[in-house]
Amino acid sequence: MTRTRVHAICPSALLVDLYELTMMQAYWAHGIAGSATFDLFVRRLPPSRNFLLAVGLETAVELLAGTRFTADDLEYLSATGLFDRGFLDELGSFRFTGDVDAMAEGTVAFAREPVLRVTAPLLEAQFFESVLMNQFHVQTLLASKAARVVLAAGGRRVVDFGMRRMHGVDSAVAGARAYWVAGLDGTSNVLAGELYGIPIVGTMAHSFVQCHSSELDAFRAFAATYPETVLLVDTYDTLQGVEHVIELARELGDAFRVRGIRLDSGDLLELSRAARQRLDAAGLGQVRIFASGNLDEHRVSELVGGGAPIDAFGVGTRLGTSEDAPNLDLVYKLAQLDGRPLLKLSTDKATLPGIKQVWRRVDDQGRFAGDVIGLAGETLDGVPLLEPVMRHGARVREPADALAAARQRAAEQLAALPKSVRGLEPAEPPYPVEVSPALAECARQVSAGLAD
Amino acid sequence: MTRTRVHAICPSALLVDLYELTMMQAYWAHGIAGSATFDLFVRRLPPSRNFLLAVGLETAVELLAGTRFTADDLEYLSATGLFDRGFLDELGSFRFTGDVDAMAEGTVAFAREPVLRVTAPLLEAQFFESVLMNQFHVQTLLASKAARVVLAAGGRRVVDFGMRRMHGVDSAVAGARAYWVAGLDGTSNVLAGELYGIPIVGTMAHSFVQCHSSELDAFRAFAATYPETVLLVDTYDTLQGVEHVIELARELGDAFRVRGIRLDSGDLLELSRAARQRLDAAGLGQVRIFASGNLDEHRVSELVGGGAPIDAFGVGTRLGTSEDAPNLDLVYKLAQLDGRPLLKLSTDKATLPGIKQVWRRVDDQGRFAGDVIGLAGETLDGVPLLEPVMRHGARVREPADALAAARQRAAEQLAALPKSVRGLEPAEPPYPVEVSPALAECARQVSAGLAD
Repeated sequence: MTRTRVHAICPSALLVDLYELTMMQAYWAHGIAGSATFDLFVRRLPPSRNFLLAVGLETAVELLAGTRFTADDLEYLSATGLFDRGFLDELGSFRFTGDVDAMAEGTVAFAREPVLRVTAPLLEAQFFESVLMNQFHVQTLLASKAARVVLAAGGRRVVDFGMRRMHGVDSAVAGARAYWVAGLDGTSNVLAGELYGIPIVGTMAHSFVQCHSSELDAFRAFAATYPETVLLVDTYDTLQGVEHVIELARELGDAFRVRGIRLDSGDLLELSRAARQRLDAAGLGQVRIFASGNLDEHRVSELVGGGAPIDAFGVGTRLGTSEDAPNLDLVYKLAQLDGRPLLKLSTDKATLPGIKQVWRRVDDQGRFAGDVIGLAGETLDGVPLLEPVMRHGARVREPADALAAARQRAAEQLAALPKSVRGLEPAEPPYPVEVSPALAECARQVSAGLAD
Repeated sequence: MTRTRVHAICPSALLVDLYELTMMQAYWAHGIAGSATFDLFVRRLPPSRNFLLAVGLETAVELLAGTRFTADDLEYLSATGLFDRGFLDELGSFRFTGDVDAMAEGTVAFAREPVLRVTAPLLEAQFFESVLMNQFHVQTLLASKAARVVLAAGGRRVVDFGMRRMHGVDSAVAGARAYWVAGLDGTSNVLAGELYGIPIVGTMAHSFVQCHSSELDAFRAFAATYPETVLLVDTYDTLQGVEHVIELARELGDAFRVRGIRLDSGDLLELSRAARQRLDAAGLGQVRIFASGNLDEHRVSELVGGGAPIDAFGVGTRLGTSEDAPNLDLVYKLAQLDGRPLLKLSTDKATLPGIKQVWRRVDDQGRFAGDVIGLAGETLDGVPLLEPVMRHGARVREPADALAAARQRAAEQLAALPKSVRGLEPAEPPYPVEVSPALAECARQVSAGLAD
C-alpha cells in the first residue's frame, strides 16, 4: 500500500543555494576536484533540548541518488548569465558518485556529533549542502520535539493534528513521518498515511455540530454513519456536550458503540475529571476521553502528573512548529579535502577536522553512559554510530522496512537514555560527549597550521 | 522564464485531515448539502506582531481549481475501510464549484479579519480547510515577519539566505515568494528564482576558502571566475580577511572589480566599522559591506540605528522559521449555512457569524485610520478589502502579473500604516479594528438562539 517515494516534494536540482553553484563553477574552472568530506551536525542544542532524534536519512539518500538537472533547469541557469556552457554541460551529466556514512534514523544524537558524513568529489559534496540541511533540519527538529511529547505522555496515546499550521506541505508530510519514528500513534494527515502506512485518525470538527439544528442531532447523525467514533463535545459547552453523549447512549441502548469524546478547549484537567465522573455515573466507563487544544510536552506532562483521566492526546501547532525551539543550529561543514584535515575558526563557530566517528558507551544496565567523537581510524570503547549507507553513489543495502526499524530503534534509544536526559527540564549535568585525544590533537595541529 | 505553477509541492487530494473526509461522508449520507460560507482568519496576533501581510491566495486558487482525486487516492481511501463505495464515487468526480472572496496578496490584515471567504456546497467548502490553512499560514507568517525586517532595514537591501533551516522545501520555496511580496530584494534559493523570477544571490561559503592553501589564494581564484563578486572574509579572522581583499586589490589594480565583502560572524557593528575604515583607507570606497549571521529585525534595527556602515543584509534562520512567533492562530470557521448565520462559543474561541466584509478607512494623508468588520450587505465608510476571486469554481480574472502587483501593494500598504504599527515594538494603542453594530447584533442574536 505504501509508495516508495519518501517525501511529498517534487524533487528539483534547483533546490540549491546559488552559492553552491557558483563555488562549483569556480572549483571546476580552477581544476579543484579532490575528494571532500563534509559533516552534518548540530553545533549547539537549544536550551530546551537534552537530545536530538536523528531523522532525515531516507530523504537524503533519495535526493543524493536521484538528483539530475533537466534541460529546463540548465536553460534557466544559462539565462542567469552566471555560468559557462562548459560548466553547464558538466551539470547536465551531474550525479552523485560518493560515499555516505550516517546514524540510522531514530538514533539519539547530541551536539557536535556528525549525524551524516558525505565523502565525494568536491563538486558533488558541495552541491548537496542546502537541500540535505533543509531536510535533516526539519525532520530532526520535529522528531526531537515529538520524542519529548511521547515521553511526557507516559504511555498514553499521542496523535498528530498539526498539518494545518505546520510550515507548508513538505513539513506536514515529512513531519508526520518523523513523529511516527519518535513514537506517536497516528496522524490526521491522510497523505502521510498513504505514503508511509501510518494509522490515520480523525472524526469531526466544530463545523459538523454547527451544521445541525442541535448538538444532539449532530451526534445522532455522526454516530449513525460511524458507530465507533469519537464525538467532539466543546462546540457550545463541554459538559453540556457530555450530557448529550449520555443522552445518545440512552437513546441507542445496546447499539451505542461510541468509543470516546474529545475535549478541545477550556481547563482540560477539570473538564476531563468532570466528564469522566458523568460518563462513569451513566455507566459509560468504556467511553475514552481524548484531549486536544494548544498541547505540548509541558501541558501533557502537567495533565498526566495531575492525574487527568485522559486516555489520548491530539497535538498540533506547538509540536508542528517546534514552538519553543523552531530551529536547530544545524550545519554542513568541510572537514577534510584530499586527505588533509580542515577546520574553520570563525568566532563561536569553530569546527572539528578530519574524518570522524562517534562511539557510544553503554553501561551494565544497558543505559547510555557517554559518547566520544574521534577520528574514524581510532579504536575506541562503545558502539560506533555512523554506518555505511552509500558507496560509489549507490545504497549499500536497501532496508526491508526502514521506517519500522527506525521507530523500533527510537523507542529503544529513548528508553536507554539517562533519566535526567529523558526529562523535560535541562539535564544537569548534560549527557557527556567528549572529543578523543587524537581528534583534539588533530584540531590543535590544523589550527596551529592556520595561525602560521 | 517563470513557470506558471505557484508552488513547488506536488498537489494531492490526500493533503487533507481525515476528519474532513469523515465529515463529508456523514454530510453526504444524511443529505446535508447546503451552501456554506467559511472564513479564514487569525484569531489573535502574536504579541510581537502589530499586523499581518496576507499572502497565500495564489496557491489557494491553484489548489481550489486543480484538486482531483486519482484512482490511487480512491484505492487508498477504500482500503481504510472508512468509506462507502457511493461516497468514493462522489469523490471521484469532486471539484470545486464555489465562490471565493479574498484580500489581494500583499494586503495588510489584522486579527479577526477574514483574509479569505469560501462560499460553496458544504462538502466542497469543508474539504479544503486544512490545506488552505497550511498554505496561508506559512506564507502569511513568513511574509509578516519579512515585512518587519524590511522596515527595520530602512531602505538597505535585504536578501533571503534561509532555505537550509526553513521547515522543508515547500516552506523554503513559498517563503522566498512571500519575502519577495514583503519587499526583500533577492533570494539564495535557485528554484524560487526560477519559479517566480526573483533575483537570485550568493557567491561563496567558508568551504571555498578552506579548499585553498590560503585565504588570499581563495580570493584570487574566486575573483578570477567572478570579477564582480562578494568575498566572504570571516573564515579565519575577519579583519585579516579584509586585509587579504585589500591585497588582492593591489595585485589586480584596475582589474579589481570586487563589489563587496561579507561579514558572517562576530560583532557586526564593530567589524563593519573597522572593515569600512580599512577599505576606505585603501581607496576601496566602492566596495560594499554585506552582513549576515543570526540576523532578525531587532538585530538589523540595532545595526542600522548604531550607524553600522552595512549596505545589505542576508537574513536566514530567524526569519525563515519566524523564530519569535513560529505560528499564527489561523482558523477556518463556518460562518453561514443556507442563509443561516452560525458561530461557535467554545471558551476563548468564539467566532463572528454571517457573510462578512472588511472596510478600511484612510485619512487625508493617505494613512490607514481603522478597519471595520461588518456584514457584506452593509454600506460602510472606507475601502472594502475582500474582492471577488473565484465564481462557480473559476477565477474571476487572471491577473497579468499577480506577484509584481502584490509586491507593489505591500510596499504601499506598509507605507500607509500608522508609525507605531510599523514599528518593531507592540503598538500602543494597537491598530483599531471594530465590529459593525449590525454584525454585533447578528452575533448577539445567534448566540441567544444557541443559549435557548
